[in-house]
Amino acid sequence: MERQKCTVVKVGGAVVEDEQQLQRLLRDFAAIEGRKVLVHGGGRKATNMAARLGVETTMVGGRRITDGPMLEVVTMVYGGLVNKNLVARLQANGVNAIGLTGADTNVMRSHKRPPKDGVDFGFVGDVDNTNGQTLKTLIEMGITPVMAPLTHDGQGNMLNTNADTIASETAKALAPYYEVTLIFSFEKKGVLANPNDDDSVIASISHDDFARYKADGTISGGMIPKVENALAAVDAGVEKVIRTLASAIDGQHGTVIK
Amino acid sequence: MERQKCTVVKVGGAVVEDEQQLQRLLRDFAAIEGRKVLVHGGGRKATNMAARLGVETTMVGGRRITDGPMLEVVTMVYGGLVNKNLVARLQANGVNAIGLTGADTNVMRSHKRPPKDGVDFGFVGDVDNTNGQTLKTLIEMGITPVMAPLTHDGQGNMLNTNADTIASETAKALAPYYEVTLIFSFEKKGVLANPNDDDSVIASISHDDFARYKADGTISGGMIPKVENALAAVDAGVEKVIRTLASAIDGQHGTVIK
Repeated sequence: MERQKCTVVKVGGAVVEDEQQLQRLLRDFAAIEGRKVLVHGGGRKATNMAARLGVETTMVGGRRITDGPMLEVVTMVYGGLVNKNLVARLQANGVNAIGLTGADTNVMRSHKRPPKDGVDFGFVGDVDNTNGQTLKTLIEMGITPVMAPLTHDGQGNMLNTNADTIASETAKALAPYYEVTLIFSFEKKGVLANPNDDDSVIASISHDDFARYKADGTISGGMIPKVENALAAVDAGVEKVIRTLASAIDGQHGTVIK
Repeated sequence: MERQKCTVVKVGGAVVEDEQQLQRLLRDFAAIEGRKVLVHGGGRKATNMAARLGVETTMVGGRRITDGPMLEVVTMVYGGLVNKNLVARLQANGVNAIGLTGADTNVMRSHKRPPKDGVDFGFVGDVDNTNGQTLKTLIEMGITPVMAPLTHDGQGNMLNTNADTIASETAKALAPYYEVTLIFSFEKKGVLANPNDDDSVIASISHDDFARYKADGTISGGMIPKVENALAAVDAGVEKVIRTLASAIDGQHGTVIK
């Protein structure tokens, strides 16, 4: 029996701050046929809100330190402001969206990351379990989950979790039920061989390619965990991982991770 | 065929600000047998957050004026902070909660209240439609909806909606499917005949009683719309409306609206 397709799209938080980008996302996402899930970040918006509230933002290696006051900020901004505005806008675009954090229907449970190498990331959750069955049930009701980058520990605490991770974990949890395509939408057309040349898109990256690109410095910095995340999803049975949303819509290919 | 019971409980937002009150709510709510829905407010928390952000709070006749910046605050605080913390705490107490605003699965649609008598309440939504069928489907999956006092207009905008209204509209929308008990939980034991005597609980209030109590001043001020709301729910087929949560748990009766 042919399996149904399901598309999981991850977008950054910046997209909802810019009305033009948001409209493009809404149009592109609404145009995806069949079953789908949207995963959003919310980075800059949380940083701005934290600044307005006098809550200091500390980043280590590109990752946010989430102390108590910052956890309040990200719970409000990711779970409330960004998520609910996306849901309302999707509804207006004919997508029957439902906003979810990991706590809602216990869909993604995590544990607080223990301090390591002298760095305590605070209330950050590393995912233990994703409830693919519940996601599937909602999706089969014609509902489109819109997932915020927040999980819970099952002990009553919300935890901050990287949106790329939420996206791969969601795609992996749906892989037993669907032929899943995971799309990381970002500003560039794909992973670039030369960061100064927007057209130098690498067509595809395998495990072997990744090792080589890392060794020769083609892939470096913040792109390393992103590609690792994508490769892990492929290993877990996700059919296809693509970097950039346009590829899903207009036949451009971006970078395929395989 | 005997109909299943469903209990809709409305709690104020203050309950989540006080750890002792919150623990009591979680224990009491988790103890309610069978199908249930929690509806929460969030008043003071939004006012506090607005003050921290330099957003001015204006109230007219006990109701919040919701301008653009205030809509951001209530969307964050009600839809994110209060709702998600309640959901996470309920999960830890064995209740499979899901947080919902009116936008999620289009569960409650409203229109922006037009200015009246020279007062423009701003981004406040008067409810047009509640999707009882979707609520029922979630409830039959063993899920407990936790509803924030926010709706949407179907055009992409979130709107601020009174939590008492959300509670009665939810109870009314579930009345075709269940024998619904609607409980407005608040600090007093029930509606009081003498506001200075906490034990002067009025045992029951019918339409006729209400007219008499209003005329003689027993029921006045902010209690009038609350009792009106409760009577409207009874008229719409809600089985029983009670003011105070303890009554559902320990056999105290509070005030029954009939």
